[in-house]
Amino acid sequence: MTEHTLKQFDIELDEIRRGVLQMGGMVEAQFTKALEGLRSGDMASIETAIEADKSVNLEQLRLDDACTHVIARHQPTARDLRLLLTVIKAVSDLERVGDEAKKIAKAARRLHANGASSTPKVGLSHTAQLALEMLRSALDGFARNDAGGIDEIKRKDGEVDSDFKGITRQLITYMVEDPRTITSSLELLFIAKAIERIGDHALNIAEHVVYMVSGEDVRFAKAQSTADERR
Amino acid sequence: MTEHTLKQFDIELDEIRRGVLQMGGMVEAQFTKALEGLRSGDMASIETAIEADKSVNLEQLRLDDACTHVIARHQPTARDLRLLLTVIKAVSDLERVGDEAKKIAKAARRLHANGASSTPKVGLSHTAQLALEMLRSALDGFARNDAGGIDEIKRKDGEVDSDFKGITRQLITYMVEDPRTITSSLELLFIAKAIERIGDHALNIAEHVVYMVSGEDVRFAKAQSTADERR
Repeated sequence: MTEHTLKQFDIELDEIRRGVLQMGGMVEAQFTKALEGLRSGDMASIETAIEADKSVNLEQLRLDDACTHVIARHQPTARDLRLLLTVIKAVSDLERVGDEAKKIAKAARRLHANGASSTPKVGLSHTAQLALEMLRSALDGFARNDAGGIDEIKRKDGEVDSDFKGITRQLITYMVEDPRTITSSLELLFIAKAIERIGDHALNIAEHVVYMVSGEDVRFAKAQSTADERR
Repeated sequence: MTEHTLKQFDIELDEIRRGVLQMGGMVEAQFTKALEGLRSGDMASIETAIEADKSVNLEQLRLDDACTHVIARHQPTARDLRLLLTVIKAVSDLERVGDEAKKIAKAARRLHANGASSTPKVGLSHTAQLALEMLRSALDGFARNDAGGIDEIKRKDGEVDSDFKGITRQLITYMVEDPRTITSSLELLFIAKAIERIGDHALNIAEHVVYMVSGEDVRFAKAQSTADERR
């Protein structure tokens, strides 16, 4: 590459990196708004979270497209190619986090529209907090080019999964005791499931970062291990 | 590229294409086994579907890795690069179809282990058949380099979504009438959700094929439209 093209290439890579972090911030804000709306019933927060999904989707396509063009134009090798392929995968996970946040907001809208009186009192905030921390930490690893946070993210993923099982058991108890809570219990169950999936996507992003930093595919070890972590 | 490298490149591309179709076949078979196990309670089918997930995961990593190496080594442009990026995305969707099939098999195992007597009689086979057809048709489009099937796949996706809503309503009725069915109803609900997600992944693959064939990103139109198809 000529010096000029090299410089252009660096500028484009830098823009892409910043784009990912910006998109990460959008998705975090969307998830936070959805949770706020769920807790308070504030319709403005709920609508903001639902609307935000469109911008998140567009941002994914923009970044995906930018990566494809940079690969085609500059034909990067090794480390830079790994960065670009990581971005393509990471923004796909971020986009799916946005989908889950939108689902949470829509379920919150239905719950509050039906009057929250028959809604079981089941605590989701601990799980939600964990999933949010996982997402932040995965993005932080991407920003700092550092895969060191993955063990902590895995530990939290296990905690989120066991929280989800506990929430399911609690909701079954509510439903058995008072069938009037069935509809709202199912909404809460789907919300809990969406939170659990956000944790999964955060872990995926952290694994992409390991690949980006080390060139080593941690997913291989996982796929080959007999443990079935991805139920 | 020299003639020799060109030939090598064509061989590698061809191997990757065949690998995707083979992985698609594995995932179809896994999904079919999971459904068979759900219907009949045959534990051998159920275990086969659960076990198959490991090979599917490894196959994704192998193909992902092969694409990355081909991009790094041969620096393909335009059409070939689109094919390789499409494969990276499509195998990620296929791997997630495998995850959902495994979830179905595990839920089937729990349902049949608890004795299927208190399990509501809710028909899932129509929805499952649709999702399977969507998957086959998306893979077929990839094989024939033809994006023509997407409208039919979208139509079926809508049908699967409305089936899912109908199934949820039916299950709520069962749960309200007989709280002893709550646990098994939730298993069925998660199975229905997994089937619905398999349909979503099939649609994603079909959209990747449109991009591969035409270079046009159909997801853009979707993201920009006000309709929210991805609830």
